Amino acid sequence: MSMKLETETDLIDFAFGAAFLGGGGGGDPYIGRLMLRQQIDAGRRVDIVDLEDVPDDAFVVPVATMGAPTVMNERIPSAEATIEVLRTTERLFGRPSTHICGVEAGGINATLPMVVGAITGLPVVDVDGMGRAFPELQMVTFGIYGVAASPVVLRNETGDEVVVTAADNRRAEAIARAVVSEMRGMAQIGLYPMSGRQLKSTGVAKTMSLAKQIGAVVRETRQLNLDPFKAIVSLISNRGGRAYNLFTGKISDLTRETRAGFSVGQVMLESLDDSAPAVIEFQNEYLRFTHRGVTRAIVPDIVTILDLETATPFTAESLRYGQRVRIMGISAGDVLRTARALEVVGPRAFGFAEDFVPIEQLQT
Amino acid sequence: MSMKLETETDLIDFAFGAAFLGGGGGGDPYIGRLMLRQQIDAGRRVDIVDLEDVPDDAFVVPVATMGAPTVMNERIPSAEATIEVLRTTERLFGRPSTHICGVEAGGINATLPMVVGAITGLPVVDVDGMGRAFPELQMVTFGIYGVAASPVVLRNETGDEVVVTAADNRRAEAIARAVVSEMRGMAQIGLYPMSGRQLKSTGVAKTMSLAKQIGAVVRETRQLNLDPFKAIVSLISNRGGRAYNLFTGKISDLTRETRAGFSVGQVMLESLDDSAPAVIEFQNEYLRFTHRGVTRAIVPDIVTILDLETATPFTAESLRYGQRVRIMGISAGDVLRTARALEVVGPRAFGFAEDFVPIEQLQT
Repeated sequence: MSMKLETETDLIDFAFGAAFLGGGGGGDPYIGRLMLRQQIDAGRRVDIVDLEDVPDDAFVVPVATMGAPTVMNERIPSAEATIEVLRTTERLFGRPSTHICGVEAGGINATLPMVVGAITGLPVVDVDGMGRAFPELQMVTFGIYGVAASPVVLRNETGDEVVVTAADNRRAEAIARAVVSEMRGMAQIGLYPMSGRQLKSTGVAKTMSLAKQIGAVVRETRQLNLDPFKAIVSLISNRGGRAYNLFTGKISDLTRETRAGFSVGQVMLESLDDSAPAVIEFQNEYLRFTHRGVTRAIVPDIVTILDLETATPFTAESLRYGQRVRIMGISAGDVLRTARALEVVGPRAFGFAEDFVPIEQLQT
Repeated sequence: MSMKLETETDLIDFAFGAAFLGGGGGGDPYIGRLMLRQQIDAGRRVDIVDLEDVPDDAFVVPVATMGAPTVMNERIPSAEATIEVLRTTERLFGRPSTHICGVEAGGINATLPMVVGAITGLPVVDVDGMGRAFPELQMVTFGIYGVAASPVVLRNETGDEVVVTAADNRRAEAIARAVVSEMRGMAQIGLYPMSGRQLKSTGVAKTMSLAKQIGAVVRETRQLNLDPFKAIVSLISNRGGRAYNLFTGKISDLTRETRAGFSVGQVMLESLDDSAPAVIEFQNEYLRFTHRGVTRAIVPDIVTILDLETATPFTAESLRYGQRVRIMGISAGDVLRTARALEVVGPRAFGFAEDFVPIEQLQT
């Protein structure tokens, strides 16, 4: 049975889990939830379909908000501009879209396709192109496994629209990033337009329903006064992945700046038990967790920072000095761990001088 | 009879006069001439037509190279990429172009349409949108009198292509400028696509043939050991304009930097006769000439810097300390001096705290 987003609880669970998988990025889950709730309250519904049910000849347009999280959190993404992006993409291809989907997990980028689906009536596929969130356009399984990001359509709320057809997906990222900067740091985008067959061979299935399940399991365990962190580990394990409670402590220092359109910085953590330092580096998303100078989790595996009491995920923008947190690490899907994927989303793609080692081999 | 570009002398005259009208901007006339010569040597010819002979229902695509002159002078603009831009514009409108034209005078931006015309066989209209050169996309009579710059198509030699459809022409400029920066500072562009009727009601007629005439008159007077500066004044006067020899001296100081994609700076001049300082400020093009602290010529009127011996125009990029120069000022066409035009290309549009006064009223 495919995923439902109908009740307030559904929305809370989904936004919670999407932010969890977003690993610090993908936008503010509260804004995403409010956007979606507005549609549900207006009597609209979202038709979410499983990836395997998408016909080969479907025409799927992934949509997202692009920009530094600092900016995204201060302006509500425009559903109307996103729909205009969809219509422009349809005109470029000379055919109507049959499905939409998201590109990444995250508080806004997972909910935005649902909002557009609710307004347009188009079915939203339970899929994304990361199983998590990444900061750049080429860091998407669609592209890693052969789909062109171009034409990338970008649009703001004041009617500026740009179509980028780049030589490759990295160039698409570079040009789109420059356009977004000129659009006051945020734009609605459509990219990687593709067939149902392409989506099925390149997408990360069930990211959206996994997000909702994570939210639900945390809510339920908390209601029962059980340990939500343990419950997450079990859930991920049941879905074929691995999750680890890596660290418990408080934020002792934080550097964060907007650089070249990204939110970049590091979080210093202090253990509640010992004095060994721990550090998380981020570029929109958390990229690497090191403890006692040793890497314990690194991209493309997911690093999350959760409130120690409630297990609520903190985006990189919501971090504050003194917060008591739990660090969790989750194995990325196999499609992100191939040699081909690691060239695009592995540690060296982010400037780290080390190779990827799966999180399950980094635990002692 | 419409203008011809057939002999080496034609090309030399045309490139010379285009650089003269370009007022410091519009690219290196030597590069423009070589590009055009390559086509003529290959046996191609340029079909140049008068503005009044363009049918109302023609589909005209103006083309140009966009970028800071510092970059434009180090890379030869790609005719092939410009033709791709033309083809994309045709696809967007669903009809083939019937004519092309330039947007501005200048060493490269006047010759580029001729090169594209030679390769494609499309007639090139003897017109531009300035009668001179300006640094920004909205500073074009086409736009001032109602034509949309969008869709602006930008393309580089490595196959990146961007289509900008902006809310207005200033936004088109801002977004296109950001894209050009990301394209290593230079792109081939098509913009202000329009009908023949629109071109006839908004263009500056005969800019290209005036350029060639200026080049010819300087060449001829120099061959006769006559004064080329006087000859230019007579020619402009015969064409209904006014030209003035404003100053004779040498360059005593020069500041120049590339800022936000523009070449910006000022030229300090020292008179050969007295010690009164003179200054020319520029943003790609020369914008204002002041002598003894008094404005003697200001945008949209044209300021040129010419070699004192040969009357050869110096682009802002070719200026050097110690050059002995003649400063000339030329009245802009009436279409650039209306209230509507001055909002876009008058002194205040360039940040000067003064209103436009026609050059003929600034002479004592």
